[in-house]
Amino acid sequence: MITINPDLYLGNIVRTRIRLARNVADYPFKIEDYATAREIVKKVNRALVRSDTFNLYYVSNLTNTTLESMKERHLISQNLIENRECGAVLINQDESISVMVNEEDHIREQCFMRGLRLKEAYDRITKIDDDIAKNLNLAFDQNFGYLTACPTNLGTGMRASVMMFLPALTESGKIRALVQEVAELGLTVRGLYGEGSDAEGFMYQISNEITLGVSEEEILAKVEQTVLQICKAERDEMERLYVKNEILTMDKAHKSYGVLTNAVILSYSEFMSHIARVKLGAMLGMIEISDINAIDDLIIKVRPANLCETYSKRLSSQNRDLFRAKIVGATLTKIKE
Amino acid sequence: MITINPDLYLGNIVRTRIRLARNVADYPFKIEDYATAREIVKKVNRALVRSDTFNLYYVSNLTNTTLESMKERHLISQNLIENRECGAVLINQDESISVMVNEEDHIREQCFMRGLRLKEAYDRITKIDDDIAKNLNLAFDQNFGYLTACPTNLGTGMRASVMMFLPALTESGKIRALVQEVAELGLTVRGLYGEGSDAEGFMYQISNEITLGVSEEEILAKVEQTVLQICKAERDEMERLYVKNEILTMDKAHKSYGVLTNAVILSYSEFMSHIARVKLGAMLGMIEISDINAIDDLIIKVRPANLCETYSKRLSSQNRDLFRAKIVGATLTKIKE
Repeated sequence: MITINPDLYLGNIVRTRIRLARNVADYPFKIEDYATAREIVKKVNRALVRSDTFNLYYVSNLTNTTLESMKERHLISQNLIENRECGAVLINQDESISVMVNEEDHIREQCFMRGLRLKEAYDRITKIDDDIAKNLNLAFDQNFGYLTACPTNLGTGMRASVMMFLPALTESGKIRALVQEVAELGLTVRGLYGEGSDAEGFMYQISNEITLGVSEEEILAKVEQTVLQICKAERDEMERLYVKNEILTMDKAHKSYGVLTNAVILSYSEFMSHIARVKLGAMLGMIEISDINAIDDLIIKVRPANLCETYSKRLSSQNRDLFRAKIVGATLTKIKE
Repeated sequence: MITINPDLYLGNIVRTRIRLARNVADYPFKIEDYATAREIVKKVNRALVRSDTFNLYYVSNLTNTTLESMKERHLISQNLIENRECGAVLINQDESISVMVNEEDHIREQCFMRGLRLKEAYDRITKIDDDIAKNLNLAFDQNFGYLTACPTNLGTGMRASVMMFLPALTESGKIRALVQEVAELGLTVRGLYGEGSDAEGFMYQISNEITLGVSEEEILAKVEQTVLQICKAERDEMERLYVKNEILTMDKAHKSYGVLTNAVILSYSEFMSHIARVKLGAMLGMIEISDINAIDDLIIKVRPANLCETYSKRLSSQNRDLFRAKIVGATLTKIKE
């Protein structure tokens, strides 16, 4: 793997996520027994004491809003939420690491980082994985590698994914051909919330599909190489679609900024379509916002459940839209130079 | 006629216009002879010297842009523009009075005033008409009244029209029934630029259709009464549609304000749809603009030919949209409290 500047393609590459699927040897994948499930949670918790400061949450103790907000931040999956009785998650202070217990697999370790930082994220999650392996006997086969509940995760148990912002390839329609090409490489392109979800706000996840018969390093290298190629294609297309139509692109960015800073109510989807235009304008230097990361953070912050979490109460849909408009307006006004 | 506060229904009643059609006796309605046509222009010009300070413009001396911009300000008609050789117009300093010569009729006298000022406008144009009658022998028949080129203007030769802003009746669809009811009263509802033109920006002209067999006072009373009834209906509908949906209405007004104050390019139609929302918000006190008249003035100022007149040059369509965005942004920022 080449060492690249993680801020290369800033804006286009939002986040890196590495996920490892692990199971405890000598247990069935689907644990029906509450005591055993709790035992695994405790062992994982004990294993992680030396790694970092983690908070342990049992699904059964959390409100639906909190669970939903964690899911919006990709810290937990729908699968974990549905395992109400046995599911748990360990999350570190800055939310860069989450370890789900009793999800589809017994253990799912995740590391998140800004930008394209596959190697760094992999190294960090490997340390977590090593600590867990010291305390728990993980199901591993010399031929197959790590054993997982679903055969698609067998082998490395690893999914390396990169969240990308691809407005030009989307608007030119070239994304369709790209999805096919990427599939031929054994990778997949999904919307923001996994399989079947839409690519709202021009956001996509690129990840490896194949986990068996390849090394972790090979997966990381292939994902990185593909992401960089997509970025190159996106930048060429941005040049053709937006830079060459500078005034039109600038106009759309500024009008969207005007809507977002003046709105009284703002649904998430209306927000997403406008913030994408603002982000694009900022990336192209057409609107005076240099902190692209602040825009990406805002996108997470104003998701429905996260909004409710911030205001510690159940908000009606209309009140959510009122609060969203306030937060978005204040944030954008603050980050504009 | 009742004396009403001319600022009643401020915002809904934009402008009053009174037009008188007059012809010189013993000449054919359609003058083909250049010398005769010029003679009439000179006589009208001489007649008006005592009335006010008028500028005399010959159509043949004006550029297409200037003619178009005068038409946008309703000072001249398409009919006058088409009489390139013989047409002329006299316009006073504040553009409240224009007298077209060699239009469809030999003389068409117009007076414009803000708000609902039918009586005042009629009194002012009558003084002009008296001065003209002193210098020219006008075609008048004891039975028919003033003789006009088109029989629809026979009699008083008068058209009294009021420009109205009717968003609620438009959005509720009730305007359609209203147009029919008004027709039964011998009045007519048209779009902003006369017959067949669209009601862009929720703007309509209400005027009398019948000129024969009724007195000027009767026409004025009927137009005024109808306009007040429409205003009442509009205000009721505004209450129902907008005041009861306060947040939604405020949101639309503020988003439109955001678009107009941040736009880089602005077509006239995009401007019109947003300014209508801003005006509505201002009328309802939902957006901090107290000078509704400034909004109505802006609507005239940024029409395509008027923009070109302001910048004294031929602007490409794209440059017009750039200038429009600048003027609109600056004006709205200035008038917001």
